[in-house]
Amino acid sequence: MSADMAIRVLDESVGKKVLIKLKGGKIIRGILEGFDQHMNLVIKDSEEIVGEETNHLGTIVVRGDNVVLISPPPS
Amino acid sequence: MSADMAIRVLDESVGKKVLIKLKGGKIIRGILEGFDQHMNLVIKDSEEIVGEETNHLGTIVVRGDNVVLISPPPS
Amino acid sequence: MSADMAIRVLDESVGKKVLIKLKGGKIIRGILEGFDQHMNLVIKDSEEIVGEETNHLGTIVVRGDNVVLISPPPS
Amino acid sequence: MSADMAIRVLDESVGKKVLIKLKGGKIIRGILEGFDQHMNLVIKDSEEIVGEETNHLGTIVVRGDNVVLISPPPS
Amino acid sequence: MSADMAIRVLDESVGKKVLIKLKGGKIIRGILEGFDQHMNLVIKDSEEIVGEETNHLGTIVVRGDNVVLISPPPS
Amino acid sequence: MSADMAIRVLDESVGKKVLIKLKGGKIIRGILEGFDQHMNLVIKDSEEIVGEETNHLGTIVVRGDNVVLISPPPS
Amino acid sequence: MSADMAIRVLDESVGKKVLIKLKGGKIIRGILEGFDQHMNLVIKDSEEIVGEETNHLGTIVVRGDNVVLISPPPS
Repeated sequence: MSADMAIRVLDESVGKKVLIKLKGGKIIRGILEGFDQHMNLVIKDSEEIVGEETNHLGTIVVRGDNVVLISPPPS
Repeated sequence: MSADMAIRVLDESVGKKVLIKLKGGKIIRGILEGFDQHMNLVIKDSEEIVGEETNHLGTIVVRGDNVVLISPPPS
Repeated sequence: MSADMAIRVLDESVGKKVLIKLKGGKIIRGILEGFDQHMNLVIKDSEEIVGEETNHLGTIVVRGDNVVLISPPPS
Repeated sequence: MSADMAIRVLDESVGKKVLIKLKGGKIIRGILEGFDQHMNLVIKDSEEIVGEETNHLGTIVVRGDNVVLISPPPS
Repeated sequence: MSADMAIRVLDESVGKKVLIKLKGGKIIRGILEGFDQHMNLVIKDSEEIVGEETNHLGTIVVRGDNVVLISPPPS
Repeated sequence: MSADMAIRVLDESVGKKVLIKLKGGKIIRGILEGFDQHMNLVIKDSEEIVGEETNHLGTIVVRGDNVVLISPPPS
Repeated sequence: MSADMAIRVLDESVGKKVLIKLKGGKIIRGILEGFDQHMNLVIKDSEEIVGEETNHLGTIVVRGDNVVLISPPPS
């Protein structure tokens, strides 16, 4: 078991652009500013992607239990 | 890991206007009066946004497990 | 963090009329008689609001995990 | 905070007729025989109300996490 | 509060025929062989009731968090 | 209360063919290789049953919170 | 009970191609880089399978509570 790998991948993504898929289908894109062990996230310069449109949301706090997956930028 | 960043962002938002997206699609706007570690929120001068309409709700307590994301005001 | 603010707002609402929105869209109105840290609520003279209709329910116990938000009366 | 009020209201309802609303819309009516801190309930002479019909269920154990609200009889 | 009543009712039902309603509407009928504090159940000679049809399932283990209610046989 | 009966029934099913019903209606059939107290399961030679079709999945790990019921083979 | 079997199967799958089915029907395919006891997963070279299409996602972190099942490669 490599229990700390999720944290390591997220740690390396801080300050970088990430794509986040939430339960219910919402997609968020922005700069990962921070996270905690519940996967609560702080995202800077965030935008919500709805089909072809994007809504600018600025800095947001995402409650971790909504997160399905986080896609860091290609390294 | 920067575990306290969500709390710091919320702390800095106390007394300011925030936008809150809840599970099920409800959107709340108002002044963040307080929060706790479950993301239970107290919102002052709150209004619920339903499509083009807004319903004034006054001061409300939001149970944290409904929160999807909190968007503080631009700093 | 102002962790006790939700409790303070609810404490100040005891004995007063509140509006409660539950998951699934149910709306309850009545006098807040008590609550606990799970947001289990006791509501007196409660009525359930369904569209234009209201069903009188008397005193009820609401299980906290159904609560979306509680709107105390204007102070 | 009046944390024990939900328990007191339920305690006073033991042996009396209650109406229970469950998640998913099920409604149960019967005599409250007992409950615990999870709101697991034992209901005697219970019946399930489906629209205009009622199904007699006898004594039942209801798992607490399904409970939305419990309406004790008028005191 | 009569916290052990659910357990007592289930204890008295061991070896007897019970009806179980699950989240999502599934109905199971069979002999209660055992249970634990999560309401995980072992049911012998079980059958799943789907409308007019019944599917024989034999002995099954039901994960407790799916249980809505358990209806012991008339005593 | 016979708290260890679910574990005993599952223990006796290790190495045998089981049928698993998951939340959302998915049905899995295969050889039970192992399980833990959360009902996380390892199933060998598994296949997913979708209506008339079966998809072969090989060895799989099923996260326990998806499990509705497990039907061991007739003993 | 063979409590550590899920972990052993996942451990043996690290560095290999896996198929992951998520709640809500999403399917992910990629190289398992790591996991923890909540089944949080790190997947490399991942792609999301939507019907006939595949979206390349690169390295992703999947929050464990979304996982239905993980299908390691044939051994």
